[in-house]
Amino acid sequence: MSDSVVIGLDIGGTSTRATALTLTGERLGTGRAGGGNPTSHGAERAATELLTALRGALVGVDPTRVAAGTIGLAGAARLLADPAGRAAFDHAWHDAGLRCPYTVHGDALVAYASGTADPDGTVLIAGTGAITAQVRDLRLDRIADGHGWLLGDAGSGFWLGRESVRRLLADLDAGHALGPLATAVLTDLTGSAEIAARPRDTVDATIQVVTRRPPIELARLAPLVVTAAAGGEPVAQALIAEAAAHLADSVGRIRPPDAVTPVVLGGGLLTADTPLAAAVRAEVGRHWPQAPLRTAGDGAAAAAWLAARDLPEVTDPAALHARIFPTNP
Amino acid sequence: MSDSVVIGLDIGGTSTRATALTLTGERLGTGRAGGGNPTSHGAERAATELLTALRGALVGVDPTRVAAGTIGLAGAARLLADPAGRAAFDHAWHDAGLRCPYTVHGDALVAYASGTADPDGTVLIAGTGAITAQVRDLRLDRIADGHGWLLGDAGSGFWLGRESVRRLLADLDAGHALGPLATAVLTDLTGSAEIAARPRDTVDATIQVVTRRPPIELARLAPLVVTAAAGGEPVAQALIAEAAAHLADSVGRIRPPDAVTPVVLGGGLLTADTPLAAAVRAEVGRHWPQAPLRTAGDGAAAAAWLAARDLPEVTDPAALHARIFPTNP
Repeated sequence: MSDSVVIGLDIGGTSTRATALTLTGERLGTGRAGGGNPTSHGAERAATELLTALRGALVGVDPTRVAAGTIGLAGAARLLADPAGRAAFDHAWHDAGLRCPYTVHGDALVAYASGTADPDGTVLIAGTGAITAQVRDLRLDRIADGHGWLLGDAGSGFWLGRESVRRLLADLDAGHALGPLATAVLTDLTGSAEIAARPRDTVDATIQVVTRRPPIELARLAPLVVTAAAGGEPVAQALIAEAAAHLADSVGRIRPPDAVTPVVLGGGLLTADTPLAAAVRAEVGRHWPQAPLRTAGDGAAAAAWLAARDLPEVTDPAALHARIFPTNP
Repeated sequence: MSDSVVIGLDIGGTSTRATALTLTGERLGTGRAGGGNPTSHGAERAATELLTALRGALVGVDPTRVAAGTIGLAGAARLLADPAGRAAFDHAWHDAGLRCPYTVHGDALVAYASGTADPDGTVLIAGTGAITAQVRDLRLDRIADGHGWLLGDAGSGFWLGRESVRRLLADLDAGHALGPLATAVLTDLTGSAEIAARPRDTVDATIQVVTRRPPIELARLAPLVVTAAAGGEPVAQALIAEAAAHLADSVGRIRPPDAVTPVVLGGGLLTADTPLAAAVRAEVGRHWPQAPLRTAGDGAAAAAWLAARDLPEVTDPAALHARIFPTNP
């Protein structure tokens, strides 16, 4: 067996993770650094974080053994189109002692590959935002949603947070007693569950708190909805059901009705054991009863697997995947 | 009969209108100037526009005959709480030669009073935003929505515009042929109805155009929805129906189910003969079959009527209202 090593990087908004694997799926090392997306952090900072993560993964590993690498990040197409971003990555790669080429993939493809070795299927990601992609021959093909908070991301953390505030405001308008979710949202935003003598003052105060912050921060309220739904709160459960329907609707825009390929669920709202994950599994299972349902796992390891499967000595990429992700066949 | 005169001002975002009336409802003069809301235009500019509008209405009228005045504007409560804004208005009032006091009311109350003389009822306004208010003894009582584009204004021009873009993006995601509304929206935003070889490029281009502008400019697309719905376009008609349901829902938050008081429809989307106005009339008529339905009219004249009805010599304000607004009993 070759003693080649592959390396994978998963670059997110708040962290960069690297994993070095042998071609039998053994983890040789992992590295971690801060957010390293050149679009949001700048090329220099991104290169620094990348190098830190790479060095962590390569402790005790001769970098000349590394035969291939893959970087997964949001906005991969933008990086490839940006010479400065690409140069910064090349520089970090070289400084880590790596001499092999590397490929860049979107984070959605890496999330997909962390859930299945099947070259064709669907990935549905719900975190702060929401996006769905059809994967064909391990490339992103058609995309649904991912349109951002103003125009889309239906069923995302932003969506759940915004809807929870809208329900609160509707209750205040109507003079209804506040349920547990509305109370939690009001307390989170204004620091108190008390309603002013003129309820409109509480409405105005709530709106002011929200509009003083960047809109995307509404996603911070999503865990309140998830927790309340898990506790049986009916308003929260209705929001979760609506979010799951939106997410399934996005999948339905691009996934054929008779597809039997796997569906991989990714993003913080779907990889944890949340009521939204359960509701999405039920919705997807209802529309595509034969689809194997998978959960996204370690993105850096999936990126390393994507690098490995292009090497000539890797003759059974599915078997390698099964060794790297023993719980996600 | 007294030869007293009353004056009313309707201050909007883009124009300020003034009307001088006799106590028999005769229009003595009207004036017009640019937007004069001190919150959005600054106190100095607001005072200048106010004075221009007042002078226009008072051409040939001895200002000492003016016995009372009313100013209607959005955010009236804020003006009253702001000494600089109030001082600027006092100054303009004085410079126009007026020696009587004036009152300030919210634009929603003035819109209501332009539709009915009944002291109790409901006003529903849909323009760029959407707000509903219960009126009690010609004062604004409870309010529903008016929460702004990020959290509310359901069924407003902003809402219609945003939803039209969301439907367009969903069609592009799904690879559906674009209908007349989606085609009109795409052409408005990108300058062309052509879809790129990779439809995702058209999705991205559309999102970029929208997100480069202030979000509220999505309201600019509302007329496309209205026009398409009037022409029988099914997607536009569905959006109009959904918007009407949202607006009726706002009314239902604050208007008792058995109310028989008038409902006044205001704002550009409801005072014109639009499919949305027709749909809202149907929704309101379904929920409150006994409610007289009225349409908001000349706000400056309504403000003048509000000023007149507090004068001791006006013994029958309803009769005066009927003379000022002969088509809106």
